[in-house]
Amino acid sequence: MADQTISRFPVPELSDLPDDIRTMIETVQEKSGFVPNVFLALAHRPDEFRAFFAAHDALMDKTEGLSKAEREMIVVATSARNQCLYCVVAHGAILRIRAKNPLIADQLATNPRKADLSDRERHIVEFALKVCDDSASVSDADLDDMRAKGFDDDEIWDIGAITAFFAMSNRLANLTSMRPNDEFFAMAR
Amino acid sequence: MADQTISRFPVPELSDLPDDIRTMIETVQEKSGFVPNVFLALAHRPDEFRAFFAAHDALMDKTEGLSKAEREMIVVATSARNQCLYCVVAHGAILRIRAKNPLIADQLATNPRKADLSDRERHIVEFALKVCDDSASVSDADLDDMRAKGFDDDEIWDIGAITAFFAMSNRLANLTSMRPNDEFFAMAR
Amino acid sequence: MADQTISRFPVPELSDLPDDIRTMIETVQEKSGFVPNVFLALAHRPDEFRAFFAAHDALMDKTEGLSKAEREMIVVATSARNQCLYCVVAHGAILRIRAKNPLIADQLATNPRKADLSDRERHIVEFALKVCDDSASVSDADLDDMRAKGFDDDEIWDIGAITAFFAMSNRLANLTSMRPNDEFFAMAR
Amino acid sequence: MADQTISRFPVPELSDLPDDIRTMIETVQEKSGFVPNVFLALAHRPDEFRAFFAAHDALMDKTEGLSKAEREMIVVATSARNQCLYCVVAHGAILRIRAKNPLIADQLATNPRKADLSDRERHIVEFALKVCDDSASVSDADLDDMRAKGFDDDEIWDIGAITAFFAMSNRLANLTSMRPNDEFFAMAR
Amino acid sequence: MADQTISRFPVPELSDLPDDIRTMIETVQEKSGFVPNVFLALAHRPDEFRAFFAAHDALMDKTEGLSKAEREMIVVATSARNQCLYCVVAHGAILRIRAKNPLIADQLATNPRKADLSDRERHIVEFALKVCDDSASVSDADLDDMRAKGFDDDEIWDIGAITAFFAMSNRLANLTSMRPNDEFFAMAR
Amino acid sequence: MADQTISRFPVPELSDLPDDIRTMIETVQEKSGFVPNVFLALAHRPDEFRAFFAAHDALMDKTEGLSKAEREMIVVATSARNQCLYCVVAHGAILRIRAKNPLIADQLATNPRKADLSDRERHIVEFALKVCDDSASVSDADLDDMRAKGFDDDEIWDIGAITAFFAMSNRLANLTSMRPNDEFFAMAR
Repeated sequence: MADQTISRFPVPELSDLPDDIRTMIETVQEKSGFVPNVFLALAHRPDEFRAFFAAHDALMDKTEGLSKAEREMIVVATSARNQCLYCVVAHGAILRIRAKNPLIADQLATNPRKADLSDRERHIVEFALKVCDDSASVSDADLDDMRAKGFDDDEIWDIGAITAFFAMSNRLANLTSMRPNDEFFAMAR
Repeated sequence: MADQTISRFPVPELSDLPDDIRTMIETVQEKSGFVPNVFLALAHRPDEFRAFFAAHDALMDKTEGLSKAEREMIVVATSARNQCLYCVVAHGAILRIRAKNPLIADQLATNPRKADLSDRERHIVEFALKVCDDSASVSDADLDDMRAKGFDDDEIWDIGAITAFFAMSNRLANLTSMRPNDEFFAMAR
Repeated sequence: MADQTISRFPVPELSDLPDDIRTMIETVQEKSGFVPNVFLALAHRPDEFRAFFAAHDALMDKTEGLSKAEREMIVVATSARNQCLYCVVAHGAILRIRAKNPLIADQLATNPRKADLSDRERHIVEFALKVCDDSASVSDADLDDMRAKGFDDDEIWDIGAITAFFAMSNRLANLTSMRPNDEFFAMAR
Repeated sequence: MADQTISRFPVPELSDLPDDIRTMIETVQEKSGFVPNVFLALAHRPDEFRAFFAAHDALMDKTEGLSKAEREMIVVATSARNQCLYCVVAHGAILRIRAKNPLIADQLATNPRKADLSDRERHIVEFALKVCDDSASVSDADLDDMRAKGFDDDEIWDIGAITAFFAMSNRLANLTSMRPNDEFFAMAR
Repeated sequence: MADQTISRFPVPELSDLPDDIRTMIETVQEKSGFVPNVFLALAHRPDEFRAFFAAHDALMDKTEGLSKAEREMIVVATSARNQCLYCVVAHGAILRIRAKNPLIADQLATNPRKADLSDRERHIVEFALKVCDDSASVSDADLDDMRAKGFDDDEIWDIGAITAFFAMSNRLANLTSMRPNDEFFAMAR
Repeated sequence: MADQTISRFPVPELSDLPDDIRTMIETVQEKSGFVPNVFLALAHRPDEFRAFFAAHDALMDKTEGLSKAEREMIVVATSARNQCLYCVVAHGAILRIRAKNPLIADQLATNPRKADLSDRERHIVEFALKVCDDSASVSDADLDDMRAKGFDDDEIWDIGAITAFFAMSNRLANLTSMRPNDEFFAMAR
């Protein structure tokens, strides 16, 4: 588990981790059958680990408003823009499962305009890409436009906040050269 | 306090907030003499608020490795790149205080190459800007280069992680059009 | 087969095609088990079809110099840069087969710097990306640099010419919104 | 004729070329009074030479739909975007002849928006530049817009396919540093 | 006064300057209480100095059409785009004075979209930024649009010409690494 | 002479101009055989006209340091980068005359890297393009590099200042859509 190829920075042994983090990782391992490398790479910094997953869960585990598949679409499209290998591959797998669609992740990662999306999904992805690439230009008119397309303010916040969270996450994964587990590549194809 | 111009999204009344958040805000207010708007704008989402400030404090309140002024330099330089008005103005004020230098924030925000920086500070800012603008290109050679310049791995992680955190923070501030308090503009000039 | 979703332009019936083109398509179908959509989309213009595949085969079916896997690496990396869904997905499948590596296509398409490449493969991909993105800046010094890395002039021409051919191919696929066959997505995972 | 300054790669002697290619070159020489260097530079690779000129002629020698001058306008405008000296100079000369206009090539090469174009010509050039620069964003709406401006689908394909062909051609010329013959510079001024 | 840190090029002594230039500088010094460094840095080239300030005064000291505050808004917004430390800091101070607004310069320099501007001021700044960043795309339609928003042709020329003048000025300041006087940073906060 | 197609703004009659400007234009006309449109377009604003040509002559008519052909090379290369039709065409003609080279202007305008330049000329053009495109990044090391290549500080200033002047000039020409006289296109071919 301490294989250095997971990250450019030290990866702790499970046995050296604080109890809450070790328990969290063991729970994921039981559920998934393996430990996604993001847990091991970030465990190098326990306080940052806890804040990272608290923010992640607050945004990605919600059930009202955006669906879980829609949330993953945001992650895959914006992470591809940031060329984040870990997030494209790992969340691509989760998206295929959540959307029950084996093609959607590769489509979104390669060219979101060519993906098989509903109008609602396309609006979500386009707004997310604007926040990802050029948040400084997000205007009142952009929010009004989203409202006119049927999104409420909680959904707009979620699209923006998920994009913002993965702007951080992509940079951490690129900084550490976090390696996606081999298991993710073929999952739900 | 519920003035909507602080954010494009609803801003809660202090009295409506969970106890822990209200206490945290009151403590800041006592210390600073006013409530920085980021606390009010993010209090709209208590769980995200808690995770945001936990991550912030884990990265910005550390005392070993990078100095507090160096941490603020990263924030001002990368937030300027992302055209984030809130972070440039608020953290510009904090940087002037921490660096005891009334010129440094405007220099860094306008053109980091023309700022009065030590060699060490210049290396920090340049690495941060690479993570900010093009994290996908951060290579093993970049890390080796930083090590050769005298940074240890904890400092390198901190530079990257602070940059990553403000990549998120800048997007949230731009999404919400978070307004910097007037107090920040003239502070420590 | 005349399904319009293959292309924004008319897709001919096999029975309406000139004999040489119909025979070529039937041969591919026998070998692959399906007809890759690029054959159907381009058959709309028989003379251009013939020239396209003559150029393709001259560059991609060679056996001396670059290996067939190396040729496909160029295609996947540069087509991802041009956001060409057809070429990334179809040639990604071919690359997985030729390189006997289920991970390499997704790695190259997402971030070539993070792909598991040998030094030789990395030099090939980097030179291809320069020709793809900014051919105007390719200098005598770039060619000398490739020679110093062990490439002969026929290999350098091939890297550049394959990249040039797919600069054309990617634009045709994006113009026609050419859809990759579903079969390609899961192939050789 | 084997002067290396025509190309960074070997340039064959006419007498060493396959009969069909030598005959083709001699025919051009008789007609033009000189051999355009593209024939000599590409003759280094006979199979690629044949496919290149077959594609070129299929797209540039057509007489229905786009006029020959319109086809050359696409070449000059997009080759200027790719900073391809050979194509701007050689096709600039051909454009001046075909359009019977000594100013149009320099105008299009420098700033297409300032060229003396009819509305139809302007629409052609603008669509071509979109395919040249950002084909991934060409949408169904772009095609509908061109149809509304009076273009049929064969004309739209031709604009896109000529642009795609010269995306290849420009990269080959930049790779080989193909030198335009001095004769082209002053032709039809 | 001959301190080399004002400029990368020699800075003349006041006593060595031609009478007209020395007198001009002494007048500014009496009025401002200090000599802005731009006068000293450019005095290295007396003929260019005279032409520079003649052009500057013709554009910036006019009283009809654009107000003096509006003229300074153009300078601050476009100089920030060009990352010109001297002009952002020095003209930021002048703008705060002319607009009687201590916040406006930092807002415009960081993100013009988030500045407290009237509609008229926003149109001025947006047109200026187009001339600054991409003057080649300024079209007849852009001028008609400005006229429809209530600007006359003299105002449109002024916006464009002030932007053009500071495109020159910003490059001179960046070439010479012209240092803003410390006095400007805190002025009119 | 009052033909509106010379400029988007009013073009004065010669007889309406102040004496000094009319005399200057008549002198140019006698020498050149025609009046270059820049004189007519800018005469709309006499004070700006005087400052513009004073700056122009101070930089372009010098005889020590850079040669006149070298000065024109800077103009053509940087004006092409800014897509300024007037300056590329008019100064292209002057460059062909000054350099006694009918090919050099088209080469520089299309791709400076492919132009027939001496090493000295190449260094001049590359430094000019850096000041043109990204003056904010011009560093002390860039100036040291130019000095190591044999340029003195007056030459370096001239390269930068000519580039800066045409950054202004190109924007004025693009703002006014200044039309190059037909005479320039064929001159000295």
